[in-house]
Amino acid sequence: MSAPLIHRLATSDADFTAKLDHLLAFEAETDAAIESAVASILADVRKRGDEAVLDYTRKFDRVEAGSMAALEIGRAELDAALAAIPAEVRAALEAAAERVREYHAIQLDKTAGSFQYHDADGTLLGQKVTPLDRVGLYVPGGKAAYPSSILMDAVPARVAGVGELIMVTPTPGGVRNDTVLAAAAIAGVDRVFAIGGAQAVGALAYGTATVPKVDKIVGPGNAYVAEAKRRVFGVCGIDMIAGPSEILVICDGDTAAIPQLADWVAIDLFSQAEHDELAQAILLTPSAAFADEVEAAIARLLPTMPRREIIATSLRNRGAIVVVRDLEEAAAVANRVAPEHMEVSVADPHALLPLLKHAGAIFLGRYTSESLGDYCAGPNHVLPTSGTARFSSPLGVYDFIKRSSLIDVSAAGAQKLGRIASTLAHSEGLTAHARAAELRLKDEG
Amino acid sequence: MSAPLIHRLATSDADFTAKLDHLLAFEAETDAAIESAVASILADVRKRGDEAVLDYTRKFDRVEAGSMAALEIGRAELDAALAAIPAEVRAALEAAAERVREYHAIQLDKTAGSFQYHDADGTLLGQKVTPLDRVGLYVPGGKAAYPSSILMDAVPARVAGVGELIMVTPTPGGVRNDTVLAAAAIAGVDRVFAIGGAQAVGALAYGTATVPKVDKIVGPGNAYVAEAKRRVFGVCGIDMIAGPSEILVICDGDTAAIPQLADWVAIDLFSQAEHDELAQAILLTPSAAFADEVEAAIARLLPTMPRREIIATSLRNRGAIVVVRDLEEAAAVANRVAPEHMEVSVADPHALLPLLKHAGAIFLGRYTSESLGDYCAGPNHVLPTSGTARFSSPLGVYDFIKRSSLIDVSAAGAQKLGRIASTLAHSEGLTAHARAAELRLKDEG
Repeated sequence: MSAPLIHRLATSDADFTAKLDHLLAFEAETDAAIESAVASILADVRKRGDEAVLDYTRKFDRVEAGSMAALEIGRAELDAALAAIPAEVRAALEAAAERVREYHAIQLDKTAGSFQYHDADGTLLGQKVTPLDRVGLYVPGGKAAYPSSILMDAVPARVAGVGELIMVTPTPGGVRNDTVLAAAAIAGVDRVFAIGGAQAVGALAYGTATVPKVDKIVGPGNAYVAEAKRRVFGVCGIDMIAGPSEILVICDGDTAAIPQLADWVAIDLFSQAEHDELAQAILLTPSAAFADEVEAAIARLLPTMPRREIIATSLRNRGAIVVVRDLEEAAAVANRVAPEHMEVSVADPHALLPLLKHAGAIFLGRYTSESLGDYCAGPNHVLPTSGTARFSSPLGVYDFIKRSSLIDVSAAGAQKLGRIASTLAHSEGLTAHARAAELRLKDEG
Repeated sequence: MSAPLIHRLATSDADFTAKLDHLLAFEAETDAAIESAVASILADVRKRGDEAVLDYTRKFDRVEAGSMAALEIGRAELDAALAAIPAEVRAALEAAAERVREYHAIQLDKTAGSFQYHDADGTLLGQKVTPLDRVGLYVPGGKAAYPSSILMDAVPARVAGVGELIMVTPTPGGVRNDTVLAAAAIAGVDRVFAIGGAQAVGALAYGTATVPKVDKIVGPGNAYVAEAKRRVFGVCGIDMIAGPSEILVICDGDTAAIPQLADWVAIDLFSQAEHDELAQAILLTPSAAFADEVEAAIARLLPTMPRREIIATSLRNRGAIVVVRDLEEAAAVANRVAPEHMEVSVADPHALLPLLKHAGAIFLGRYTSESLGDYCAGPNHVLPTSGTARFSSPLGVYDFIKRSSLIDVSAAGAQKLGRIASTLAHSEGLTAHARAAELRLKDEG
């Protein structure tokens, strides 16, 4: 008997919770060798600036450049790339960018939130929203280069009003990816440097003579990039440290409504599994018969996939088909998983929505394949992974703005508030705090 | 000649920028001994749960407890503390809580941002906002216990709709602080445990038999607590790692309008400096005469301050009075500093406001002492420090909610979006992504 293609579980199993926890367990290993290599690269870039970046680029990317200026990819080259890519790809990138722009403009309107109001004493209170001055965008090079991610990182920054967008992307062997450069042109990136790795993160965080210091670094990268971002956090902001991609599909298995439903679900599971052998794809269904159909569809369709080796490993090690008692129980299990992507392929997905609490993005209905969201529906495809959807959000315009509180206390307000502040400051033993309030009282100094 | 009380700089100094950068330079030391002690405490708490927490509480807090249940401070004890504190302090806490609640309710309305809309093809897009299920609140014990901070951490969580609030606070020697417990009662904390340090952070992050696992930990602590929060980040969310407190005052020095202005400014500088020898207090003024007056006021008022030793050290090492050319230049310097607290004591503060980009909170006008904001104006007093106001925000309701994207693609929408997604997926070599979109095309599969 061959090894199963994918785990089969049922919530009625006595040890279901333990099995699920075991399947979900994932911890990014902290590799001491990577930690120490990154620490030393960052310290060197901080100290020697451009020269250090040039040295590491020579060493790791095999790119000989006489100066950092030679590693800047200018506007003319971006425009040339835009002209060089197939018209169909350019049109698709532009259409995707436009939809992402539209969604994030609405998001900005709903979440940026400058406000001011006066209380009864005439004191003004409020919140001032300011876009970040300058953001760095890390774009992986080589095989893991996804032009769609440039749109997802850069367009919301632009919509939020970020002053300047600096992109870095390694070009191993000096090979520049036209689709990546075209996406940068479409997304409105201001400057592009052909550098990568921990040295590029250091250049953005500390600034060099050529690379400007940024306020925040966003975008995914390999283990060196992730560790470098973790280390510079505080010197500048970072987005998230992403783990392997995940999908969880809740499906009622109603093949009377959609005869090819098992194929759709199987392919949706594949579309996450093909990213990475560590990716996770889980199906929850109340129908044991449908579970069998999906397993059969997996067996039938897997050989047709160019990335079948990756998909097979991912499904075998980390994938699962779980038979649940009903859709309410499916929602409870889904919340426990808190997946990056949650697909709800049921007759009335909006009826289930109030029960769904924890997910990066929720894909509702039969036609909403996760891949539509990945590329062009409009919402961001940079999403919390590894259960962090319990407490974090998709990348959004709110990641590219920050708030300052505003307080303008009237002379009348200072009388009332001053007494409260004085009482509390004395109770905490902070006399200067108390005196600062008391000096503004009319019957005092 | 004695050492100066505070640095004196002028933007017209040839080396002003270098001097300012030197003054601002602050890096939290990463102490290898603390790192390794915390790593081992966290691993132990993760493994042994309650027993480990009891052991460390015995060791570090000198509290003998037979079980974790004995370390839970119940509702009856919170209510007793509320009845025991002076009526004036209780009234001040309640008034402050009410103002903080009102401000954050308005903030929630402006920034939480659930929304849904349909595009022309009938595809629904949106964002669902969900409060966090359970939040842990770290409250320092002993001398650094600030009841006002409990209000600032817990009230916004409650306003945001967090399901359950678990507070931890060490009680060295078993001494419980009534004002702290009363503040917890007023703020609506659900459960309180008398534990602290890295072991309390570990208990909240991993959960034990008695202490429930939380989704996010907020609140300040000592170096062990800060390192523990840094380490559990990812297992759960954390707020920020706070550095020393800071104030920057921009003052026109118009003593004709306010005769006692130099005293007010001096005391405001003190009210930050008294927190900590590492705290930073900076005055920017276009008037050299006023700079002299403030320096004289510092000399005169310092001896009257109970915490004069701390204030003197802070001002001598990290404080500065900077003479600027004009208020526009003051705004530019202030943005470079990006202080936690920025006071704008000028004739028309709102005229200067558009130039002020980077600060945790901005205090406008002569009567708005920073201490009013610390206690009771309404906005949060947990603010970004060490220049991180360039990219981060005050603690707010947005820290206690998270968003999920919503996508419901219509059958018609799947035709248009499917073609875009298919083109982009093929260009990235992700065939399963492309097939998932293509299967939903009406003229295919």
